[in-house]
Amino acid sequence: MTDSSILHRLAETIEARKNTGSSNSYVVKLLTNGQDKILKKIAEEAAETIMASKDGNTAHVVYEIADLWFHCLVLLAHHGLKPEDVLHELERREGISGIEEKLSRKTGQ
Amino acid sequence: MTDSSILHRLAETIEARKNTGSSNSYVVKLLTNGQDKILKKIAEEAAETIMASKDGNTAHVVYEIADLWFHCLVLLAHHGLKPEDVLHELERREGISGIEEKLSRKTGQ
Amino acid sequence: MTDSSILHRLAETIEARKNTGSSNSYVVKLLTNGQDKILKKIAEEAAETIMASKDGNTAHVVYEIADLWFHCLVLLAHHGLKPEDVLHELERREGISGIEEKLSRKTGQ
Amino acid sequence: MTDSSILHRLAETIEARKNTGSSNSYVVKLLTNGQDKILKKIAEEAAETIMASKDGNTAHVVYEIADLWFHCLVLLAHHGLKPEDVLHELERREGISGIEEKLSRKTGQ
Repeated sequence: MTDSSILHRLAETIEARKNTGSSNSYVVKLLTNGQDKILKKIAEEAAETIMASKDGNTAHVVYEIADLWFHCLVLLAHHGLKPEDVLHELERREGISGIEEKLSRKTGQ
Repeated sequence: MTDSSILHRLAETIEARKNTGSSNSYVVKLLTNGQDKILKKIAEEAAETIMASKDGNTAHVVYEIADLWFHCLVLLAHHGLKPEDVLHELERREGISGIEEKLSRKTGQ
Repeated sequence: MTDSSILHRLAETIEARKNTGSSNSYVVKLLTNGQDKILKKIAEEAAETIMASKDGNTAHVVYEIADLWFHCLVLLAHHGLKPEDVLHELERREGISGIEEKLSRKTGQ
Repeated sequence: MTDSSILHRLAETIEARKNTGSSNSYVVKLLTNGQDKILKKIAEEAAETIMASKDGNTAHVVYEIADLWFHCLVLLAHHGLKPEDVLHELERREGISGIEEKLSRKTGQ
């Protein structure tokens, strides 16, 4: 299935960029400028997701969540982590009842 | 591959919850309380990702990104969208050069 | 007292810029590019406040909160509002017991 | 002028709460539960400001910016800082041309 592997493939490409260090690369700039630049992008893309959703613009919602997840992949690479770590964490919590129980404990809802 | 299907399976479970409307469910509460509750969680989980990263706590980074992606799945369900829409958008942009070109145009970096 | 009037003076300068529409002005650009640009800056400056605080860099905390409040003044101007509206709202809630009561109702804490 | 002193008075009340440590107080809970709780509230209130603005609800915009600034006061107290530090920073940058120059350098706009 193509779906599965796009996160994995992107992570591999990010990793490859990290090692070649081409200074023209947006990803390399993010990875070499320190985590704050990456974290600021995550905050920005989360805000843009919120704005797209409030606009009711579903194409933008998809687009901004794609940006948000992409920058999460860059952050994972910064920490030597992989998207599989996140997917396994989601799997570990499955079924959703597990997630729900934990999240409701966390938020008091 | 297990990785591939966890996002898909979670989305299906969220969809099933949406239809049954069990009032004990955290997901049902999020989906019935309006998008602002979901969007607030996305802002919160993005902030917690940032804090975990600043703490250098990689286990927390994984955990908070899992929370962030999970709430993105709930937002997608709110809009009648699927994780595949996001994954296809990421695929469409591949290779990363495509993403990079677009993102650098967007941010002026 | 100088403190009092700086928010008021900044708001007046923002208002004056809005009316002259000088295209070289950062504020004019923000005000004419639509609220999303202003909102994105608020998200960014909130994230930078969080990062400065996690770094324990108090000079940066002051600096980023100043940036955050400044962009709030621009947002208020966008909506035809004034900093006095926010200060009066804070006053209205005083003593803090009023704020606390309301906030704890809001957050369930 | 009443405007001037509300930030100062709130900061003094926060400081007083900090020292008495009354466990019923929302502010005391925030100050004793560690900075992450305060920072999470700043992210939340920034997101709620964004949502209120997208809704075009100016009463909510005022209300959420009041919440945001209030939690900034709590963060300042956490770091032993005062609202005057932020106001002086804003004053230092005045006229706005100073702010604009700096911000445009920062954001590349």
